[in-house]
Amino acid sequence: MNSEKKKYLLHFLLNKNNILFNKKKIDNIFIKNATDLEKSKKNSISFFSSFKYLSQLKKTKASVIITSDGLKKYISKKKIIIISKNPDLDFAKIFCFFYPHSYFSKISYKNLSINEIKKKYKNLNFGLNFYLEYNVKIGKDVHIGNNVIIKENCIIGNNVVIGSNVIIENSIIDDNVHICDGAVIGKKGFGFKFIDDVCYRIPHIGRVIINKGCEIGSNSVIDRGSIGDTILGEDTFLDNLVHVAHNVHIGKRCVFAAQVGIAGSTKIGNNVTIGGQAGISGHLNIGNNVKIGGKSGVIKNVKDNEILMGYPAQPFREFVKNNK
Amino acid sequence: MNSEKKKYLLHFLLNKNNILFNKKKIDNIFIKNATDLEKSKKNSISFFSSFKYLSQLKKTKASVIITSDGLKKYISKKKIIIISKNPDLDFAKIFCFFYPHSYFSKISYKNLSINEIKKKYKNLNFGLNFYLEYNVKIGKDVHIGNNVIIKENCIIGNNVVIGSNVIIENSIIDDNVHICDGAVIGKKGFGFKFIDDVCYRIPHIGRVIINKGCEIGSNSVIDRGSIGDTILGEDTFLDNLVHVAHNVHIGKRCVFAAQVGIAGSTKIGNNVTIGGQAGISGHLNIGNNVKIGGKSGVIKNVKDNEILMGYPAQPFREFVKNNK
Amino acid sequence: MNSEKKKYLLHFLLNKNNILFNKKKIDNIFIKNATDLEKSKKNSISFFSSFKYLSQLKKTKASVIITSDGLKKYISKKKIIIISKNPDLDFAKIFCFFYPHSYFSKISYKNLSINEIKKKYKNLNFGLNFYLEYNVKIGKDVHIGNNVIIKENCIIGNNVVIGSNVIIENSIIDDNVHICDGAVIGKKGFGFKFIDDVCYRIPHIGRVIINKGCEIGSNSVIDRGSIGDTILGEDTFLDNLVHVAHNVHIGKRCVFAAQVGIAGSTKIGNNVTIGGQAGISGHLNIGNNVKIGGKSGVIKNVKDNEILMGYPAQPFREFVKNNK
Repeated sequence: MNSEKKKYLLHFLLNKNNILFNKKKIDNIFIKNATDLEKSKKNSISFFSSFKYLSQLKKTKASVIITSDGLKKYISKKKIIIISKNPDLDFAKIFCFFYPHSYFSKISYKNLSINEIKKKYKNLNFGLNFYLEYNVKIGKDVHIGNNVIIKENCIIGNNVVIGSNVIIENSIIDDNVHICDGAVIGKKGFGFKFIDDVCYRIPHIGRVIINKGCEIGSNSVIDRGSIGDTILGEDTFLDNLVHVAHNVHIGKRCVFAAQVGIAGSTKIGNNVTIGGQAGISGHLNIGNNVKIGGKSGVIKNVKDNEILMGYPAQPFREFVKNNK
Repeated sequence: MNSEKKKYLLHFLLNKNNILFNKKKIDNIFIKNATDLEKSKKNSISFFSSFKYLSQLKKTKASVIITSDGLKKYISKKKIIIISKNPDLDFAKIFCFFYPHSYFSKISYKNLSINEIKKKYKNLNFGLNFYLEYNVKIGKDVHIGNNVIIKENCIIGNNVVIGSNVIIENSIIDDNVHICDGAVIGKKGFGFKFIDDVCYRIPHIGRVIINKGCEIGSNSVIDRGSIGDTILGEDTFLDNLVHVAHNVHIGKRCVFAAQVGIAGSTKIGNNVTIGGQAGISGHLNIGNNVKIGGKSGVIKNVKDNEILMGYPAQPFREFVKNNK
Repeated sequence: MNSEKKKYLLHFLLNKNNILFNKKKIDNIFIKNATDLEKSKKNSISFFSSFKYLSQLKKTKASVIITSDGLKKYISKKKIIIISKNPDLDFAKIFCFFYPHSYFSKISYKNLSINEIKKKYKNLNFGLNFYLEYNVKIGKDVHIGNNVIIKENCIIGNNVVIGSNVIIENSIIDDNVHICDGAVIGKKGFGFKFIDDVCYRIPHIGRVIINKGCEIGSNSVIDRGSIGDTILGEDTFLDNLVHVAHNVHIGKRCVFAAQVGIAGSTKIGNNVTIGGQAGISGHLNIGNNVKIGGKSGVIKNVKDNEILMGYPAQPFREFVKNNK
């Protein structure tokens, strides 16, 4: 986006009854990107909408911060501050300007021709109807099926196998990963905000990071993070029809059977096994070496080494005792 | 189908030990279509197989009605009546003649060339390998991914985003809808009848109607209605891997998390939120403003404003109390 | 694989601290294939790693058998015996040489051109972007959608309907079967072994056998067997988003609603109906005429004619009584 557009954008925000809190000439600021407080650098625009991000606020390098009237006092006077009735929402609108694909499952229609692919990616094995956008890195000994879509800025490691009908977006796929047919990796997450009966989509500019040796089953879906990332640790295996929501972190050597679902922002340790059709609520912490029985519903944090089953999930021994 | 075929069809029914109840010369009737009593017009053929459709029977304009011996007395003598041992099944066979695609996930192989698409749909954004059948309306600012299939008679509104690998059939998609990668919209529903160990598929000629502003997640499937329609109200959002069966009606501003399943013919009100992996049985009524917790199994009707969780689903407070 | 490679393979095994138990000159053996004890013929290599396969061991025609030190005494001295610390794993490695595609969702990139398809399969109905490998048999009146992938050695019967975006591998599809859009049939199963924190994939060279008149719903996934087969009996119907794991056997006239999951190696009788989102654990036996309610979790064997519901599944009457 050019700087003219960005100025328009800031004026748009200010014109919506938002208030420019300090006196800096906003027209002279060249805004380079929009992100969270932690990732912001000089010339970033960010937002501060909850007291719990105070420590991040203190360290942020963002030049412009959108906030609410009640929270403005916490922000350094060196920053340009925009006061909004809905800082999250106004920030989301900014995102839409910077990252127009962050709300939708869109392709850019800017893809390499087959000849360009052959020239740039020598020795790459790929099938029919391959759609590859620009600026993708692909390693050695990679094997790609038919009808595969890989969107811009993805990184694919060495010895990766990608089945047919697979879609990969905003993702880093490390060495020796196997993605089975029909999987969708890096789709925008499921986030909305209803304000006065109008729905606003939450942007998703995060990534999916799949570490070495993982396997993703057929027709499974892994959503990318909203601002942060969705992460799978090394040698983690997901079976078919599994759902992994935005900003989930999964550790190493985990095995999740078919139709498991992990809700948004949950963190899971290493060596965790989850039986088929089990589900884990959002924003939970699941420890290391945890075993969760098939069809369980986990709605609380789980400590290391626990074995759980049931809905709501309980210690396995109790489940057996209660269901004699 | 020409009228000769249709005569054959009626004779076929009559030859199967069915009885033509009144004396009208069936050969002189030109049957135009086959549908339910409510939608029938003059020259429609329909069926009456259950007393609960009596009020529809009284108003129907159908010229020919298939029924059972026990129910024939309720039908006006002005109609041509065919008495069958299995009126539903014989009607289903009629359907198969009129709508040969009503039983299968078939394409017609009659699609526009890329040049025809570009000529007819100016300014349409579409990706590789687009398969578009005839007689489809597509609005402005529509954005279509790769490998998309849109079958005949669909209507796509303005500002619609359709991801890649999406299949749309028998559907009306209104403005501002976003269909994510891999979703299947308008597939025939799951209906069978076993009679004497022989299986007969139930036809599905209904539609899927997705109203303004909805979003459908990746790899989700929405079946079309058998005779009526499957309907999503405005601004309703479905996450990934969701299943919506035939003839389900969902209201406005509903949010269903991943892997939710709604069985056939269930009606759901407005502002209903359903957590991940929850399921709702068929033929139920769920009120407005209902909240259903993740993984719940709903097997009874639910009144407005209720908050439920568990399997079977119970009021949330009881669920918490019972699971301390 | 030529015999030179196979010799290399055996030496590879022997060099890994494995012991050649009897004195036969292994160099003179020409190994033709690798399979289980039951399917082995002369010049097969197989493995014996558990006492429960003793009866198969007694009848096997395999020329070479990999086993553990403790089990070697049960094997006839006429066989060439290789003693391994991990006979399963060493056998799995052998597989990888014989069947390089048994671990991955790969295509071979060896497919017929459209002209070859038209010439060889006269009157076949097929859509855009059809990928068909060599050595596939296809019957009469077959109807194939767009973007379909059928890999080598598959057999497709008469009057089969295959929707769009369907992938079929290692499968036999009998007459009158209908496979809906987006289904993945014959994918490798989900099997791993972690030894000393290193993960080894279990090979899958079995097939999926779908008998006459079945229907498979959209985006459902059926994994092929590891060595044996995954089997669906005649007139069995699966709805959308169903998962059938490796080596599952399902009988005739079964109806499984959407999002059902069957874990590996479970055997299910005839006329079994399963409600939506229900799951069945692995290695179970489910009798004939069983009815399992929606969302149930079955974790024990089930006798003929039982009606179950709940998690864990219990007799339907008890479920109702317990949930008043």
